[in-house]
Amino acid sequence: MTQIAYEAARRFIHAAFASQGFAESDANQIATLMADADLQGSDGHGIIRLPQYIKRVRANGINRHPNIRVIIEHPATALIDGDNGMGHLVVSFAVEVGVRKARSAGAAWVNTRYSNHAGPASLYVRQALGQGMVCLYFAVGNANHLAPWGGLDLLLSTNPIAAGIPTDQEPPVLLDMATTVAAYGKVKAKAKRGEQMPVGWMIDRLGKPLLDPNRSAEGLLLPIGGHKGYGLALIVGLLAGTLGGAAMGRDVVDFNADHTSVTNTGQAMLMIAPEAFGDPLAFRRSVDQLVRDIRGGQRLPGVDRIWLPGEQSHERRVRYRESGFPVSEVLLKELNMLAAEIGIEPLTRAVAA
Amino acid sequence: MTQIAYEAARRFIHAAFASQGFAESDANQIATLMADADLQGSDGHGIIRLPQYIKRVRANGINRHPNIRVIIEHPATALIDGDNGMGHLVVSFAVEVGVRKARSAGAAWVNTRYSNHAGPASLYVRQALGQGMVCLYFAVGNANHLAPWGGLDLLLSTNPIAAGIPTDQEPPVLLDMATTVAAYGKVKAKAKRGEQMPVGWMIDRLGKPLLDPNRSAEGLLLPIGGHKGYGLALIVGLLAGTLGGAAMGRDVVDFNADHTSVTNTGQAMLMIAPEAFGDPLAFRRSVDQLVRDIRGGQRLPGVDRIWLPGEQSHERRVRYRESGFPVSEVLLKELNMLAAEIGIEPLTRAVAA
Repeated sequence: MTQIAYEAARRFIHAAFASQGFAESDANQIATLMADADLQGSDGHGIIRLPQYIKRVRANGINRHPNIRVIIEHPATALIDGDNGMGHLVVSFAVEVGVRKARSAGAAWVNTRYSNHAGPASLYVRQALGQGMVCLYFAVGNANHLAPWGGLDLLLSTNPIAAGIPTDQEPPVLLDMATTVAAYGKVKAKAKRGEQMPVGWMIDRLGKPLLDPNRSAEGLLLPIGGHKGYGLALIVGLLAGTLGGAAMGRDVVDFNADHTSVTNTGQAMLMIAPEAFGDPLAFRRSVDQLVRDIRGGQRLPGVDRIWLPGEQSHERRVRYRESGFPVSEVLLKELNMLAAEIGIEPLTRAVAA
Repeated sequence: MTQIAYEAARRFIHAAFASQGFAESDANQIATLMADADLQGSDGHGIIRLPQYIKRVRANGINRHPNIRVIIEHPATALIDGDNGMGHLVVSFAVEVGVRKARSAGAAWVNTRYSNHAGPASLYVRQALGQGMVCLYFAVGNANHLAPWGGLDLLLSTNPIAAGIPTDQEPPVLLDMATTVAAYGKVKAKAKRGEQMPVGWMIDRLGKPLLDPNRSAEGLLLPIGGHKGYGLALIVGLLAGTLGGAAMGRDVVDFNADHTSVTNTGQAMLMIAPEAFGDPLAFRRSVDQLVRDIRGGQRLPGVDRIWLPGEQSHERRVRYRESGFPVSEVLLKELNMLAAEIGIEPLTRAVAA
């Protein structure tokens, strides 16, 4: 592992997108969000995705100069057409629209269509939290690895649910979870490390536990709570995909295998302005109190600490800002091969040791 | 088991509440919703709750003549004060407010406070679906049986999530799930039948599987997906409880043990008018198509049918409307002891055989 400084990663990603003709401000926004993903430990959604994104851009599978815009709106809703731009740009735009509407209407629901993979949901929930909002976020995943409960057809993805609740003194409560027991990135990581998967992550097409991650293409991810997680993944897909006219079910494009088809990815988010329900500071303090009750409670034998959702990412962000974040030698080599290909400066560790 | 006709149950419940001085229209609304719960097979939330509800009413733990009203509102939000009335009345009122606001603003978020147990979440999602809405529903459960992940303090409940998506020809997609592997009612049912619980439902205070449902008071329910379900239960509680100034965490009153304290129960719901995102019929038809893709897909060996969320309840509703719904002899006896106590006609099977 090499420690990469946040700023070095940000500049590298920026240079990569700028080299492909992206506008300065767009390259900057994408780079900041992608490096933020690594900073919080979402290493399956940060700089590791750069080669795939750039491959898609170079294959014209992404619109370099999208006209991201609101196409239908009401006082508390908006439908955003992402014009096949990078998901990071589309979803950031959608959050801003949602926040603005929630400030005037109390709450707002925003759907995107013709968006793309946007990295970890938590980035956008953090953006909303930064503006004092309560936020729920839903997305249709970019490859179907989940079947309906009892079924074999891969009609569903790991469709994530994320939520953010603002606090006063404590780190915000920030949940970001796949509706499957394991996200597909974790399966790929097991394969890379030559490890077996635990029982409960995947089954094969006979319903038997599948433990070899190299055989994952033959299997199905399992939803959390059996039929309940299937129900959640379905609802998330209907809200984030179907409602806004984005891809869902058999229309989902596997963006790992296909670098050119328009993915028509959909995301959806709810913003609630806490001041619409009373004194927002009193609310934030109630959340703090609950956080402290939970953290300070009795623990099961062998448990050192009770974590709140988002707290570990919060701590990593502080730590990695100092030390840089870890990148494997394999990934670093891959990124620097990309750099040579597209003619940008290589990525170096660039952390003052 | 005795088959009880829907209408007989409805009249019986109506008579029970009318006998306690409830207004005619309120008794009627509560009775319809409670009988509807049994009609769809939510037998832990229907007529079985009548003795407990009436006990609370007679102990003045419920306000017989509540002034249920909007206390703060914005174009897309409302905070409803239930004035400690029956939850069924408060939540039905909240749905109507939410639907009205969503029709004009596109979407609406409504919180309740000073509400009470309202039966199954799906009843209110159905109410919203009947008006063409997409709906999400969250509630704080009325007794804490769940600890934070790694913890022992019962700070969380089985906080349910429900969601409804309207369809055209197909039954609506209607999810209604506890965020725990098993709802507490299922544990009580196991005890009643003298059966052991499967591994994964509960643990004891050492973290070991707890299998004896008669020892459930010593244990903790397990959340779906481990830490993920804990995160969901927490977010649901923050949205449905804390945001609206209702009870959450250590403030939750165990309404099974305490019949007089004001529970300050909170519920929250989101309504989205599909027409705010385009042609609502086209949307409904897309949902139908997805439902058919799922139902018609390949199945795992031994699986007879792939179910959509809400489909089994839908089929029961049709069947039980004909045949009546099953009530155990024990429950029937208990209900008829109550009838004698409060001076109403006993409940009889009243289904034309």
